[in-house]
Amino acid sequence: MSLELYYWDGLQGRGEFVRLALEEAGADYVEVARGEASEGLGTRTMMSVMKSKDEPYPPFAPPFLKDGDLVIAQTANILFYLGPRLNLAPSVESLRYVANGLQLTIADMVTEAHDTHHPLASGLYYEDQKAEAKTYAGHFLKERVPKYLSYFDGVVAKSGGPYLMGRRISYTDLSLFQLVEGLRYAFPKGMAKAERKVQRVIEVHERVSGREGIKAYVASDRRIPFNEDGIFRHYPELDA
Amino acid sequence: MSLELYYWDGLQGRGEFVRLALEEAGADYVEVARGEASEGLGTRTMMSVMKSKDEPYPPFAPPFLKDGDLVIAQTANILFYLGPRLNLAPSVESLRYVANGLQLTIADMVTEAHDTHHPLASGLYYEDQKAEAKTYAGHFLKERVPKYLSYFDGVVAKSGGPYLMGRRISYTDLSLFQLVEGLRYAFPKGMAKAERKVQRVIEVHERVSGREGIKAYVASDRRIPFNEDGIFRHYPELDA
Repeated sequence: MSLELYYWDGLQGRGEFVRLALEEAGADYVEVARGEASEGLGTRTMMSVMKSKDEPYPPFAPPFLKDGDLVIAQTANILFYLGPRLNLAPSVESLRYVANGLQLTIADMVTEAHDTHHPLASGLYYEDQKAEAKTYAGHFLKERVPKYLSYFDGVVAKSGGPYLMGRRISYTDLSLFQLVEGLRYAFPKGMAKAERKVQRVIEVHERVSGREGIKAYVASDRRIPFNEDGIFRHYPELDA
Repeated sequence: MSLELYYWDGLQGRGEFVRLALEEAGADYVEVARGEASEGLGTRTMMSVMKSKDEPYPPFAPPFLKDGDLVIAQTANILFYLGPRLNLAPSVESLRYVANGLQLTIADMVTEAHDTHHPLASGLYYEDQKAEAKTYAGHFLKERVPKYLSYFDGVVAKSGGPYLMGRRISYTDLSLFQLVEGLRYAFPKGMAKAERKVQRVIEVHERVSGREGIKAYVASDRRIPFNEDGIFRHYPELDA
């Protein structure tokens, strides 16, 4: 049976980290919310799973994955589950916890990237928190981006590279690729500056970009372009 | 060999979620940063592990756990690893991913609780973002607290209770206990109001409070009192 990925249509968002793993592995999966209502798919179907009385452990929010009866919520958790199944996790079991620690650190940075445009409340418009967004984004670019990226750069150095976990690719590399993609889209100026000091991170990004599965995916219409509904948003006034 | 927990001395913070699991299980563990320098412990020892050239996968930040050579970072990841070992995870393996999804949702709420007092930047003083903190905290209490807590309440209802995952306690219940403790400390007024609608969450809190391991721990000096260095801070002006 196909894996079912549930995430909002029309944006990359957190679902993109899961999509990249499924695409790299050439997995058989259905994007439920992006399907046709006539085929029993679509956003309404996603919402009905979330609100289903039959589901013993409903998720708090998308993305979530269904594998048969099992519903798995939270991006890093989905990847932890899929990693070994897609051959994108370390083969040594204890190292899967190391990969998960990296993934959760990427997730923390993603949350901060989101908060650059919504520092006060997700429920308020960007326009109503623009001044605060400028302050947040300033600190993010000046302090947080260098701190996170140099950490990941150091991980590649320590593992011996060329990937975060060493010689074999893992889903964490796909997520680091997406992080670089997103930061370049949102903050082209700030990121150009930050990249100079994290050559190993950029090499991971390039290596992932060149993989067959990722190349084909990025060139397809399955890859939704970045836009201002997602996590990484390009508001020029926030880019230092 | 003892498990080694690495977290800042002097605050509960994210480390507390791990401490509660270790204490409930009566595990043999050492709190490295809280130990004496004369015994090779203390904050310096923690920092030296983080900066060690010998550690192949250094953590980004505390808390982290050492189990022999394995270093595991990120609170939810530590608990995912410890859960089965401390008999605080579901025995059915697939349900451990459900527990991890819940734990990561608790972690998201914890991040938002932190951001109530630091909405603009962790690197700025609270005093320099007080007005923004008021706005953030207002939305948090009005929208996010009810949304998260009613979600957890619904999970208990669906599983049949009395715990989040059903009849058996898991580490997620200990974390939900801590969430309630923290919210009561930080927002006594706001939380008194929110609690009325989530009776099952409060019952989980009470049930956890009454467990021998937790009672003994909370009464001991190993439990650091809540304070304004932690995640949950009581600033009366933020409490609606």
